[in-house]
Amino acid sequence: MANPQPAVTFDEIRSLIRDLPGPDLEAGTAALARQNQLTKPRGSLGRLEELAQWMATWQGKHPPELRRPRVSVFAGNHGIAARGVSAYPAEVTAQMVQNFIDGGGAVNQLSEVADADLRVYELDLERPTQDFTAGPAMTEEGCARAMAYGMMAVEQGLHLICLGEMGIANTTSAAALCTALFGGDPADWVGPGTGVDATGLALKVETVAAGLAANPGASADPLEALRCLGGYELAAIAGAVAAARMARTPVVLDGYACTAAAAVLAKLDPRALDHCLIAHRSAEPGHALLIGKLGKQPLFDFGMRLGEGSGAALAIPILKAAVECHTGMATFAEAGVSGQSSGPSAGQVH
Amino acid sequence: MANPQPAVTFDEIRSLIRDLPGPDLEAGTAALARQNQLTKPRGSLGRLEELAQWMATWQGKHPPELRRPRVSVFAGNHGIAARGVSAYPAEVTAQMVQNFIDGGGAVNQLSEVADADLRVYELDLERPTQDFTAGPAMTEEGCARAMAYGMMAVEQGLHLICLGEMGIANTTSAAALCTALFGGDPADWVGPGTGVDATGLALKVETVAAGLAANPGASADPLEALRCLGGYELAAIAGAVAAARMARTPVVLDGYACTAAAAVLAKLDPRALDHCLIAHRSAEPGHALLIGKLGKQPLFDFGMRLGEGSGAALAIPILKAAVECHTGMATFAEAGVSGQSSGPSAGQVH
Repeated sequence: MANPQPAVTFDEIRSLIRDLPGPDLEAGTAALARQNQLTKPRGSLGRLEELAQWMATWQGKHPPELRRPRVSVFAGNHGIAARGVSAYPAEVTAQMVQNFIDGGGAVNQLSEVADADLRVYELDLERPTQDFTAGPAMTEEGCARAMAYGMMAVEQGLHLICLGEMGIANTTSAAALCTALFGGDPADWVGPGTGVDATGLALKVETVAAGLAANPGASADPLEALRCLGGYELAAIAGAVAAARMARTPVVLDGYACTAAAAVLAKLDPRALDHCLIAHRSAEPGHALLIGKLGKQPLFDFGMRLGEGSGAALAIPILKAAVECHTGMATFAEAGVSGQSSGPSAGQVH
Repeated sequence: MANPQPAVTFDEIRSLIRDLPGPDLEAGTAALARQNQLTKPRGSLGRLEELAQWMATWQGKHPPELRRPRVSVFAGNHGIAARGVSAYPAEVTAQMVQNFIDGGGAVNQLSEVADADLRVYELDLERPTQDFTAGPAMTEEGCARAMAYGMMAVEQGLHLICLGEMGIANTTSAAALCTALFGGDPADWVGPGTGVDATGLALKVETVAAGLAANPGASADPLEALRCLGGYELAAIAGAVAAARMARTPVVLDGYACTAAAAVLAKLDPRALDHCLIAHRSAEPGHALLIGKLGKQPLFDFGMRLGEGSGAALAIPILKAAVECHTGMATFAEAGVSGQSSGPSAGQVH
């Protein structure tokens, strides 16, 4: 975000979300038709069949493809980190970005296993958001600019984009954002994050409550919630989710902070995340609650809570498996395999 | 199984199971020690951390490796197929084996995505087991020979072996086997398999009950249960599981029929499946019950019910991810990343 971004206003973002393209039902129907001819009992590949159809529907083509997956990790710093809400100091955000550049992070290994292209985006790490217990975390201009930055990170021609984040203190920001978006008590949305103890947890709850009190407009509007309580990396993720929809690129969301960022769009339009899959249910307790609010079914429940796109990258081989079964399997006719017998109980009149 | 196999007796198999090698705790401890130095909050990779440690423990070395995964699918035919317990006719077993050889099955695509070597083993498809409602499915010699065949399929030097089966009517065989091994009502263990209707389901329950009545010795001894109610492909899987333990090769089990075959060993020795991971919870309802009896936690819950090793192959990229994170990530010291801050609540005396 070193170069000036094209000015984007919240009004422009609102109209963009209103006009997001819908599903390609023709591609989805073609996928279903093929699925039912493949050499397996109908439905016997379970979720893999649904995923292949989902890929076709949101890529807008049949057969779907998955040769060009991307993992995009957005990093930002948070003013509230100075309050000690994380088990790690704020400088770890930049240190971990350097670790990703050096190839030493979990997401590096996971992207390699998935044969995916990994990109890491820093959002002015030396300039954290404002401490939201004293007022809005971002200006409208700063928030919209971060969203535009996330949008521009989505190139044309990707077959899948996995989103992740790095930002010390951002589970506190995510909890504040979720409380504003979905209501409930701050304690419902706060969890141990990187591993704070009971005192740390109480401080997080207090910080979220103070953030909501200091930003009374946040609960009235999803973009205001993002601006007042979010962070630059979360705004970028929200922008990337919207841009991927326009580019007909299915999205894989990672854990709590990433899903919270995407949830801003779901509150603007309940169909806005139909092109998104949630990779896993994080160990961070607010994630399960958030997934329920969004009506999604994650692929994995591995007790992961690392962020940095790690869970999302893990979904790539599963999606590849779904696409490869869909495109590579023989049909009953091609393989000369006998179909389901009608059996004595069906089709006969005695 | 065209060539004569070395004669193996049930007594020899019993003594082999008694002497299976235990875990390599030194390798497991070394894995845990490294895990805690990697650039992530402790435990934040959840199940991936457990899997890396499990791989080290059962490969008997640290670091664990996963460059040579194998998918082995055993195919056999069942006398009870003639009773119409499956939605498909018995000739589909051989037709599907040909489909695997031609590269058209789901397991072919899944093995390719996982970069795994796929082998398919036919167990005298033209010679099905006896209909177990009229007495034992196999002779002791036939059952032991199939187990020995499965043992020989496990080469030295594999880093992982995924097991699967193909055999029309084998969910009925699996249900009979589970009823004999674990008790309960046949209806608890019977499910729709490839997709039978209510009439088919009732016929399966009736067939299992008749099998138990015709084989009163089956419930008294796990190997007798396998011999009387199992099948050649299931016996081969049980043999492969034991041989993999001796070869220090971790095993991934697939769905209901595959897990039922392995369960024979668990009934002989409760530690016999400690080197086995169950890939997924099948949609076949008996599988969840069986998994509970074995005290295992499957990786996936994708509603799959295809068999042929499909779920097991899907686990390979997840295990690769676990091993690659474990071996490829930087430590905090290597990356110069600040560790967890102790915070005001820890380590200070006021």
